Amino acid sequence: MRTSIATVCLSGTLEEKMLACAKAGFDGIEIFEQDLMVSPMSPEEVRALAARLGLTLDLFQPFRDFEGVDPELLQANLHRAEAKFKLMARLGMDLMLLCSNVGTATVNDDELFVAQIRQLADLAAGYGVRIAYEALAWGKYVDTYQHSWDIVRRVDRQNVGICLDSFHILSRGDDPEAIAQIPGEKIFFVQLADAPVLSMDILSWSRHYRVFPGQGGFKLDQFLGAIARSGYAGIISLEIFNDVFRQSNVERTAVDGLRSLNLLQSQTAQLLAAQGTGSGLDLQALPGGQQPRGFDFTEIRTEDPEPVARLLAQLGFEFRGQHRRKPVQLFSAGGARIIINAQRSRGVTAAVSGFGVQVPDPGVAGERALRLLARPVPRQHLRNEADLPGFNAPDNTEVFFAPAGRGSGWEAEFGVQEAGAPEHFPELIECIDHLNLAQPWQSFDESVLFYTSVLNLQALPGTEVPSPMGLVRSQVLATGDCAVRLALNIVPHGLEEAIDRNHEYPEHIAVRTSDIIALARNAVARGMEFLHIPANYYEDLAARFDLDAQLLDTLQELNLLYDRDEHGQFLHFYTETIGNMFFEVVERRDGYDGYGAPNAPIRLAAQFERNRWNRH
Amino acid sequence: MRTSIATVCLSGTLEEKMLACAKAGFDGIEIFEQDLMVSPMSPEEVRALAARLGLTLDLFQPFRDFEGVDPELLQANLHRAEAKFKLMARLGMDLMLLCSNVGTATVNDDELFVAQIRQLADLAAGYGVRIAYEALAWGKYVDTYQHSWDIVRRVDRQNVGICLDSFHILSRGDDPEAIAQIPGEKIFFVQLADAPVLSMDILSWSRHYRVFPGQGGFKLDQFLGAIARSGYAGIISLEIFNDVFRQSNVERTAVDGLRSLNLLQSQTAQLLAAQGTGSGLDLQALPGGQQPRGFDFTEIRTEDPEPVARLLAQLGFEFRGQHRRKPVQLFSAGGARIIINAQRSRGVTAAVSGFGVQVPDPGVAGERALRLLARPVPRQHLRNEADLPGFNAPDNTEVFFAPAGRGSGWEAEFGVQEAGAPEHFPELIECIDHLNLAQPWQSFDESVLFYTSVLNLQALPGTEVPSPMGLVRSQVLATGDCAVRLALNIVPHGLEEAIDRNHEYPEHIAVRTSDIIALARNAVARGMEFLHIPANYYEDLAARFDLDAQLLDTLQELNLLYDRDEHGQFLHFYTETIGNMFFEVVERRDGYDGYGAPNAPIRLAAQFERNRWNRH
Repeated sequence: MRTSIATVCLSGTLEEKMLACAKAGFDGIEIFEQDLMVSPMSPEEVRALAARLGLTLDLFQPFRDFEGVDPELLQANLHRAEAKFKLMARLGMDLMLLCSNVGTATVNDDELFVAQIRQLADLAAGYGVRIAYEALAWGKYVDTYQHSWDIVRRVDRQNVGICLDSFHILSRGDDPEAIAQIPGEKIFFVQLADAPVLSMDILSWSRHYRVFPGQGGFKLDQFLGAIARSGYAGIISLEIFNDVFRQSNVERTAVDGLRSLNLLQSQTAQLLAAQGTGSGLDLQALPGGQQPRGFDFTEIRTEDPEPVARLLAQLGFEFRGQHRRKPVQLFSAGGARIIINAQRSRGVTAAVSGFGVQVPDPGVAGERALRLLARPVPRQHLRNEADLPGFNAPDNTEVFFAPAGRGSGWEAEFGVQEAGAPEHFPELIECIDHLNLAQPWQSFDESVLFYTSVLNLQALPGTEVPSPMGLVRSQVLATGDCAVRLALNIVPHGLEEAIDRNHEYPEHIAVRTSDIIALARNAVARGMEFLHIPANYYEDLAARFDLDAQLLDTLQELNLLYDRDEHGQFLHFYTETIGNMFFEVVERRDGYDGYGAPNAPIRLAAQFERNRWNRH
Repeated sequence: MRTSIATVCLSGTLEEKMLACAKAGFDGIEIFEQDLMVSPMSPEEVRALAARLGLTLDLFQPFRDFEGVDPELLQANLHRAEAKFKLMARLGMDLMLLCSNVGTATVNDDELFVAQIRQLADLAAGYGVRIAYEALAWGKYVDTYQHSWDIVRRVDRQNVGICLDSFHILSRGDDPEAIAQIPGEKIFFVQLADAPVLSMDILSWSRHYRVFPGQGGFKLDQFLGAIARSGYAGIISLEIFNDVFRQSNVERTAVDGLRSLNLLQSQTAQLLAAQGTGSGLDLQALPGGQQPRGFDFTEIRTEDPEPVARLLAQLGFEFRGQHRRKPVQLFSAGGARIIINAQRSRGVTAAVSGFGVQVPDPGVAGERALRLLARPVPRQHLRNEADLPGFNAPDNTEVFFAPAGRGSGWEAEFGVQEAGAPEHFPELIECIDHLNLAQPWQSFDESVLFYTSVLNLQALPGTEVPSPMGLVRSQVLATGDCAVRLALNIVPHGLEEAIDRNHEYPEHIAVRTSDIIALARNAVARGMEFLHIPANYYEDLAARFDLDAQLLDTLQELNLLYDRDEHGQFLHFYTETIGNMFFEVVERRDGYDGYGAPNAPIRLAAQFERNRWNRH
């Protein structure tokens, strides 16, 4: 499938945008007129640069407010159009986007639209230009693709077709199915955008909140499927107006965009295959996505392993060995394996730096990740050491694929006997329950797409958690069976003025236990101090839940938090924070399926108080 | 008027919030339950701290999802309520907010609501607690104040009244007039919130976008007027859920909130006086707002005055004198006076640091500013030196009031003859047209309220300008006659990853000329280099406007930008940037009233390119 992207999606200068698109691997770009207008590059330079970079210049856009106007304005509009046709000739471009009139149209008359667009078409023909007519969702008179197609059909010129933009169609709730009935050769261009499901006016939604396919709520595989069934064999482009993308790193955003198209074409190919339908789009399928079976390990990077090792020991983890070559230690408890890595960790107090997941075939998973433009982790391995495919997530977490089942053999590098894989001490810890990863605000959508596509996780509905530093946006990603769960949190970026605040937003590793009360008592006996939970919390628990008085006392004594859902109960506690990380221990009773969300504000406030205390 | 604020409006811990509210000058606070629950302070400590700070604890809130439930849930709800009544007793509080049920109500039956609220009332009476019932705009069955009032009337208990929240009423477009008919003593509490006019679902609008009175689009003077006419004589409180306030400096936000109430009560007092109506609210009027007649001066702070002085000379400014005591220089041209201040400017390359406006009575303007909690500028003056009242705006700009007309006499300190006030050289510059001030994203709403209330400016509709760094939000504030105009721009905060970006967002001083072409030619002759405008821009001008070829050549030759509105034409250019500031020169032909907004992207991109060039 030939891919393109509108320059308006990206930050920076036109030159920077073009370089980033080429580097990411797009086939072409749409020139958003204003990006050219503000550029010091002449049209000839843009054309030459595109040629050098191997980018086609696919669509000149937008040409606005043309049809449905009075004769005087029509002449001015034709004058304006002719200037742009000349400009396109200098750029070597032949396709212009004509948006349905939103401002200057005064007559609601399809015949008039047809007649005036014919005049434009005839003028364009003299310059070898083709016109792609698009119905904007907020067009004054023409606002559906059915209407724009009807007009294009009646214009009946070889150089006039339609442009279909998923946002303008799906934001209105229109059914894209009828697209399949449009002759593919009369579809001149296709633009894709996804968007979160928001209830707001369509114009604001479109101008600020569009996202790349797979980052929102639209069913774009069905949309692209309908396009494919029309016989369309042209370019699939991205046109995303997004406030964050406009101010994010241009190269990363370009990669994020192409990743979304690579995923979508694979999903659409699957859909069409299931329907037994062919496609002229040459959709590339990705290697099959594998559902991770569980966490293989979690890695903590730290300059000084001792404080983390002490916490792990207090929680009941056993030291299993030191890596034979590197300053890397392995701890485990039940199925939970935690690596403390002091390599290249100068100045890092402690941070969750990576994790591995178990999949049936790590090689295929790694191949799929590469096709999704994941950035491989540069790791050094000797010939006889395990070499797990690893990739940097947008939040810089390192993600590895390990073989499910018998183990990847890497434990042997720590002197652990292969055969004894999970040795069964009388441990209370079962496994890693979930990881909570902090996200810079710029990379949230990118991270969600990365983890859902590369790790094959599903995004659950997001929440917002109040904290003394602001609202924390939180999003859980999980496998269908919840064997792997990630909670992504966006850090609020406020309080910059209050320079004595601790800006770090710690990440955490949650381990699951079968008996949190016993585990907590053991940990206390080993000297662990938990995050202190205010007495007010327990009074509120007593008001909200009909809890046994003894349980309530135990909860308060051990600083345990409590929640309940329709399935069962949830008990959890937090350790102190070391550097930029801490541990959570959770017990899920009777299939409780959440994360104690009502308790998250308690945790955030307690950590905030604790920081404040430490500072004074 | 007694003022209060809900703790949920503010960032930080409960203790920090209380300290900030007391320092700002609020009479009391609403305890948002979660703020208490996450606090390590016991209820007794909170009560004692409030007493020490002189804050009353006005409302315990919210109590949710009580009425309209089945008998079993009713018992659980009464149990929950009783726990909170006991908690309130420890806090020494007697008023609880009951929100209309949004979740658990299953029966839509007013009789049932009345009966169940009576049970709550009777339980509350035993604890000396009063209940303020509020209709949430998204209540399941009760969502208007008329409905909640009807229920309260039928409950007919002395300890049950209503709570009125402007957001829940005005967001629905409800008319607040009928409030005046409710007996004042049955209104138990009043919460105010403003909000920008947005088209989105009310719940999201309410939870994220509320702002302080005067920062949004609601007519709150009419709302408060209706409250006053009911005979209500209680507390007026702020309840603002705002994503930015939640992560901004708590002390500043508290001051911002109280400023909004001080302004609103004055506006409401005026409204009631005009209607010849009294009020039990004891509304305090502010000293009369004066419309500034024009800019008195603009001040630039810089370590090295020479580059700025050179620019001013190239533009046609004359050096008028050096301050007799301080390293401060005065330049003027026509009515435009610019001060270059090298005092305490170590490390500052050049920045727009302040400005003065002329008002009929600076003393009264200063008094009004103090009542609006503006922070006075600490300035040193000798006895015989001019002492203009001056205040720090939220963006740290220093704002001074100078007497209109004959001049404040401060020019004499520069050796300028009092009598010769504006000497008339054959100058092309007329006056300062506007100032463009960069705003940190956290203080935008605060700045708008500050400038509109303290300087008596009106806010015009905002715009958003695309730039290579992201969208720049822009808002013009002006006097009715446009003698004083400020453009506030929010700086995008992106691109933090791209560390080689120049993050500074320069501010500028725009001076108005009667002949920009002559002025530009003079400036070029004196060696000035303008911000270079790309050739592509002039080609687009030719396509959009029917411009004389010679004018177009002149525009391009001189790097002038062009715009047109329904009144007339606008020509302008920009100088190079020095430090964090630059100059703009504008010519307004035939009453053009804008700011060349279509050209703002050109300027931002050209400056971005220029920075990029300088870096390489």
